[in-house]
Formats: sequence, C-alpha cells, structure tokens
Amino acid sequence: PASGRGSLPRIGITMGDPAGVGPEIIVGAWARPEIHGWCRPMVFGRPEILRRAAALWASGAEVVAVRSPDEAQAAPDVIPCLVCGSEEAVDVEPGTIDARAGQAAYDAVVAATRLALAGELHAVTTAPLHKEALNRAGHHYPGHTELLAEMCGVEDYAMMLYLGPDPEVGSRAGLAVVHVTLHTALGEVFDQLSEEAVLSKARLADRFMTRLTGSRPRIGVCALNPHGGEGGLFGDEERTIIRPALERGVGEGLSLTGPLPADTLFVQARQGELDAVVAMYHDQGHIALKLLGMHRAVNVTLGLPIIRTSVAHGTAFDLAWKARAEVGSMVEAVRVASRLARTPASR
Amino acid sequence: PASGRGSLPRIGITMGDPAGVGPEIIVGAWARPEIHGWCRPMVFGRPEILRRAAALWASGAEVVAVRSPDEAQAAPDVIPCLVCGSEEAVDVEPGTIDARAGQAAYDAVVAATRLALAGELHAVTTAPLHKEALNRAGHHYPGHTELLAEMCGVEDYAMMLYLGPDPEVGSRAGLAVVHVTLHTALGEVFDQLSEEAVLSKARLADRFMTRLTGSRPRIGVCALNPHGGEGGLFGDEERTIIRPALERGVGEGLSLTGPLPADTLFVQARQGELDAVVAMYHDQGHIALKLLGMHRAVNVTLGLPIIRTSVAHGTAFDLAWKARAEVGSMVEAVRVASRLARTPASR
Repeated sequence: PASGRGSLPRIGITMGDPAGVGPEIIVGAWARPEIHGWCRPMVFGRPEILRRAAALWASGAEVVAVRSPDEAQAAPDVIPCLVCGSEEAVDVEPGTIDARAGQAAYDAVVAATRLALAGELHAVTTAPLHKEALNRAGHHYPGHTELLAEMCGVEDYAMMLYLGPDPEVGSRAGLAVVHVTLHTALGEVFDQLSEEAVLSKARLADRFMTRLTGSRPRIGVCALNPHGGEGGLFGDEERTIIRPALERGVGEGLSLTGPLPADTLFVQARQGELDAVVAMYHDQGHIALKLLGMHRAVNVTLGLPIIRTSVAHGTAFDLAWKARAEVGSMVEAVRVASRLARTPASR
Repeated sequence: PASGRGSLPRIGITMGDPAGVGPEIIVGAWARPEIHGWCRPMVFGRPEILRRAAALWASGAEVVAVRSPDEAQAAPDVIPCLVCGSEEAVDVEPGTIDARAGQAAYDAVVAATRLALAGELHAVTTAPLHKEALNRAGHHYPGHTELLAEMCGVEDYAMMLYLGPDPEVGSRAGLAVVHVTLHTALGEVFDQLSEEAVLSKARLADRFMTRLTGSRPRIGVCALNPHGGEGGLFGDEERTIIRPALERGVGEGLSLTGPLPADTLFVQARQGELDAVVAMYHDQGHIALKLLGMHRAVNVTLGLPIIRTSVAHGTAFDLAWKARAEVGSMVEAVRVASRLARTPASR
C-alpha cells in the first residue's frame, strides 16, 4: 500500500565512476525485490548510462529522469534517476581512467550528500569511484570517505567494514571491522597510532553496532605486533598505547577485549565470539574481511551527520560492463543503510 | 609386507612441551591408520607422559621405550619412544609454564635433530614448545626455527606455512606461505626488508613446492603497503625493494607475480590462482592462513639440511590434557614430512 511505502526511508544511490561496475551493480541490485521492501531508492547520475546498464542485464526496468526526491517513484521496474553531472560522461569508455568519469562520480556524491544533509534523503549509498579519475578531474581525495567528511565538516570519523551474519561469520550481529589507521604507508602507522585514536575507533564501533543491532557489541582490539607483542619482545605499542586505550574504554562501559594477536582474533571473530574488531592498519582488517566475505562486505562511514554506506569493492575495471559483476555488496549496502535509517542514532 | 614398511621414511616426532597439547596430539594422530602407510614414526620424549596421553584418549596403544631408531617397531597400536629428557618433566602440571617442561621439549628436539643430521632419521616433526618455558630452562630462542637453524649451522632459512589442497584452498598443489620477516616488532620490518631477503624467500618457496608437488609453483608476492602502495602514495617499498627482487626472480625462471595488495592476493590464492605466497611480515601471512585452515596448517622450516615439519599451532595450554585438541595439523605435518622424505631435494 502507498502509505506503507511512504514510510520507507529514502536512499540516494550514487552511480560511481561510469567506466566501472557501478551502474550495472545498481541496476542488478534493483532487480532484487527485497530492496523495495527496505527503502525507496533513487539513483544520482546520468540516466543515459543507467539505461545502458539496464540493457546490459536485459532488466526491462525503465529509467526515469527526475529533478528532486519528491518526484521519485521507485518500483522494481522503475528506476528514478536524479540527473547530475555533465553529459560528457556518457561517452566514457568502459574500463578506462577518464577525468570526465571522475567528475561525474564526484558530482553524484556531492548532489546526494547535499540532499542528505538537507534532510531530503535518509541515507546515501555509493557505488565505487576511481581515485585516479577523481584526481584527474581535479578533486584530490584518497576516496569517498575523506570527501564526505569534508562536506560534512567532521574530523572524528572512521571507515568501517561490515559483514552481515552468515555461515562464515558466527556472530548473530554480523561482524564490523573499524581501522585506526587506513590509507597510509605501513611505515606511517606508528606515528598515527595513539591512545586517543584507538579509543575513538572503539567508541565508533560500539555506537554503530548498538544502533544496528540494538545491543552492545563484544569488541576485540587487535595488537599491532605479532603474537600481541610477545610480552614486549616484539614491540611495545600494546603496552604503551593499545592497553591504556582499552582500559579507558572499559571504564566507559564498552565491552572490549585485547590487545589480541590479530591472526587468532579473526578466527575467534569467525567463531562468533566477537561482534566487532578494531584493527590497527588497513591490511590487518582487510585481509580477514575479504576472506570472510569479499562479495557482501559493506563499507560504512562512521561519525558523519548523515548515514552513508557503500560497496566494499572498487570499480573493477577488468570486469566492468560485462554483466559479470557481483551485486551482493550493493544489495547489502542498501540493506544496512535502510536499517540504520529506521533506527535513531544513540546520540 | 615387511619389505614395504622398511622402505617407508623414518620420522622422529618430538613430544613438545609436556604441559601443552603435544603429547595428546601425537597419540591422537597415531590412531589415524593413514600415518602408518606414509612412514615409520617414532616419538622423542618421556614414555611416562605419552602413556598418560594414551590413557587420556583411551587409545589402547602401547608405548615402548627404545634407545635407537633401529629398535623402533612402529604400528598403529605400538608407539616407540626414544627416551630423552629428565624424569622431572613427568611431574609438570598441565597448562603451566615450567622450566622442566621447557627443558624436556628442548632435549627432544636436540636428540631428534642430531639423529636426523646423522642420517638415522629421514625427517623430524615437532610438537609445540612454549617459548617462555624454554627461556626459563635457559634456552633463549624465539622458537623451534631459530634453534634448528643454529644446530644445523645455516643462516639462509625460512619458516613456511603450508596448507594442503581442500575446498578452502583452490590450488591442487595446496598453498605455501613464506615470510620475509617473522618474529619481530612490526616497526623492525622496514629495516629487515631487502631485495635480497625477498628474493631468497621466493627461491625457497619455489624449491619447496617444486619438491613437494613436482611442478613449478605460481608464486604471488605481497606488497608491504595497502593497495600495493597506491602508485607511491602509500609508501615506496614496492618500487624500491619488492619489484626489483621480483624482476630478478623472474630472470632466474621463477614464476612470480606482484607486488599485489595483500588483501586481494589471498582471495586469488583461495580461488586457486596461486600455489605459494611471499608475505612481508608475520601477521600478513598468518591472518590469512589461520582463516583458511588453522587446524590443518603445517609449519615447514626451509633451508635446513634436514627435513623438518611442525604443527602450526602453539601449546594451547587452555585446551591441554582435556582430550579436546585438534590432531589435524599433526597428521598433516607427518604427511608432508613423509612426502618430502620420499622426494629428493632439487639441490
């Protein structure tokens, strides 16, 4: 019934880099009927490109250009697209790094984020952009996360990866992984690691999982060094930084254990003994997550005033526009955004 | 037939720390009939302790004290034990750090290694020791690997972890992971990493897998930094160290690809696209391996003049002497040792 659908959250899905898999995973996910029971989705980008993606999958869905979220009437066979970006993007070759594609991806994110900040969307879900194409268009961000943080004016934010519950992830709450340091050389990690940074990520993980699942997560905190530092033999960051952060967090009521050797911690997580993990650096978290569920991981930016989820993979230029891309991560990204949009923030 | 068994390789299995799971996983593995089709095993340690482990599993096997490999007549219901170490070790409490236990583990390794060096054993398979117990007994080694390297007088060696083929590991050759740096603080990795070190580990991986499987392995080399360094944005070790090592290795005929971002590399490995991986530091390799097959991983020391395999787990004091320990890794360690012993070294 119309009244039922009207109460569903409005999710803006950005098209991503048109040379990559973004357009086709949006159209592919659109065909999953459950999406339309979770939310009222709409796309931000160029309708011409979405129509090509619909033809690629032979989806039969009609792409309708709209000018505001109010005009959007999503249905399994109707894809409302808020037109943004230049027409130039339509000519981009699949699988190529192109400034026009970077600009189009940028324009879609900016448009959706502005509407979310203005309260006209309940959440934003992003398809992948290509960092170098973005740079060539003159926008110098390492990725979505930093662009969104700047647009929202926040400094205390974090990228979280989330896997919903399934046979590979034992916890009924799923598994969230947040990174203390992220897009930086491994050699820079040591300067960036601090008690405050570890504690702040643990707090963000706690708030996110509490909001998503309704109960306090059991959070495991990774050691930085092998064997958890082996009692100081293999480094002392566990003693000087991580353990003090953990003790402060426990004092605040967080359910934290660690620092635990990262290799055994992720086995415990898979066995369902943890709901969230604080990883110290990019690969520590990503190696485990990609093995546990590469095709259904969701990227969530924590600490923003808006809800933002994303697929956890990149533009996958080698696969793009071949109707072979996995849509599972996009479906999950929309599910998690919808779920968060229906749940009030804890503060 | 007796002639058939006589041609099987002789494997010496060291008891490990008697407070840990070593004795029970040896007795548990002994009950697997396939073991006795692969080799003629014998144990190095205290017979009293093995008898207690046999009673724990109600295995019914008889433990027979012997003084040399020639006396050993292994059978599924007969466990020959070359007596070594002091009787004191018999009194060690399960799950405790005890110098007597460390000394007993040490004595067993030394005795088996000497016989292997003398050609009286074809291979040594070790049960886990406890580093702190070893230290308390006055033996200051980070682990088995360094002790064995010293006894054998070698400096160019490496610890390799190996997973046999199974549904989680796509390659029919299984998956070997060798580490360029290992038991060291993460902050020390940068000084230890060198072109020569990367190349030497790649060569060891190539030689091991060629010997084990009879064909040249496809080896993936991990990047050190996230996203493989992102073209220099996130560190330059890929350009200055890893890529030059790779090019030299390819020039020598090795089948190397990389440097690849570690998180996607292990997904490729699981999909069967790689037979071996060169990891830059401990957790990079171990996080993936433990998720892919913690209970059946085998540790192999490469570069020794003797064959040495080991379980890939530790003493597991929390599980020890409860008849709950997994024996899969010990079974695999004996299988791989037997297989290597039947295959001549390539040089």
